[in-house]
Amino acid sequence: MSSSPSKFPQAIEHLVQALTKLPGVGRRGAERMAFSLLKQPEAVSKSMANSLSALHQRIDECEKCGFLTEDGVCAICSDSGRDQTQLCIVEDDLDVFAFEKSGGIAGLYHVLGGCLSPLKGITPSDLSFQLLMKRLDELPIQEIIIATSPTVEGDATALYLNEILEDRDIRVTQIGRGLPMGGNLEYTDSGTLRLALESRRPFN
Amino acid sequence: MSSSPSKFPQAIEHLVQALTKLPGVGRRGAERMAFSLLKQPEAVSKSMANSLSALHQRIDECEKCGFLTEDGVCAICSDSGRDQTQLCIVEDDLDVFAFEKSGGIAGLYHVLGGCLSPLKGITPSDLSFQLLMKRLDELPIQEIIIATSPTVEGDATALYLNEILEDRDIRVTQIGRGLPMGGNLEYTDSGTLRLALESRRPFN
Repeated sequence: MSSSPSKFPQAIEHLVQALTKLPGVGRRGAERMAFSLLKQPEAVSKSMANSLSALHQRIDECEKCGFLTEDGVCAICSDSGRDQTQLCIVEDDLDVFAFEKSGGIAGLYHVLGGCLSPLKGITPSDLSFQLLMKRLDELPIQEIIIATSPTVEGDATALYLNEILEDRDIRVTQIGRGLPMGGNLEYTDSGTLRLALESRRPFN
Repeated sequence: MSSSPSKFPQAIEHLVQALTKLPGVGRRGAERMAFSLLKQPEAVSKSMANSLSALHQRIDECEKCGFLTEDGVCAICSDSGRDQTQLCIVEDDLDVFAFEKSGGIAGLYHVLGGCLSPLKGITPSDLSFQLLMKRLDELPIQEIIIATSPTVEGDATALYLNEILEDRDIRVTQIGRGLPMGGNLEYTDSGTLRLALESRRPFN
């Protein structure tokens, strides 16, 4: 117990500071979490501690596509049943899970590990472009689907990708943009409306 | 790696499930946290794991007042410089920290550990009323300040406290209720306004 009772005991203070490292958790939220854990059975914090310790030990990047795996090569890359001619390029692991849930990609993925951002100091050498080029030499890829986010940084990354892929005899596409399913035109922001207009196509 | 890539690897799934035990964290938030930890250096999750493991081992309840402590008796109870005639009754540990920051309490505290709630099955035997009665026999308390929350449950607890303290020759008060400092009357909810009207007092 600290001698000043207006400060938290060290064991709590340490936990509060650790919890503020989580996204979207500020000082007050972290305090609330720490005291909630203190009230819950010890098993709850113990199990959280164990999962945290195991995280980096057990999860690795797939040496082929950069997606997460518990072995050297991920489940998608090692699945010979997947279409080896289609490659979908995404920013993050979570994007792969999203596409897998949708069931829309029969082929393979390539996880860049982020997107280009001069402001955040993320240059091409920080992302897995080299690994991508190496894969393109090895795989019979016919179509590359660029699925970066519709943001300034995602678009810059898409442009860069298109540039470095130009010399290859591969069809490069980008996922569609516009109104989301169930979207209401009236409440759609003007950026999305502009995107939707730019992406208009013949009504067949 | 699970064989179905639409599911998270076990190590991540376990962490996600553990994180949903935190207050205000749902499935999506926990996923975001887990992937953010995966991107951050291993030291971040390691330090969080260590703090979590230490939490219950190092933090205990003060045997006198129920406040948290790293020894048997908390810093406030063991401080002989504090007013032994004043006792402030609060629901939770965090309330003690709040009062200590305000500097408004010169005396001691008693932490109930919650408030009465028939709906949640919290009865008087779940809170530290017995410990409170024992302390009142030992300490020269002259004033008890009831500082439970201005909620239905907090009020029920305050009423119960007032009842069991009736027979004793102790002044029982309750902390003031009404508009908070800097509060704007226009934007104050009607419940608070009613409280403020009920708590009106002569303008001296």
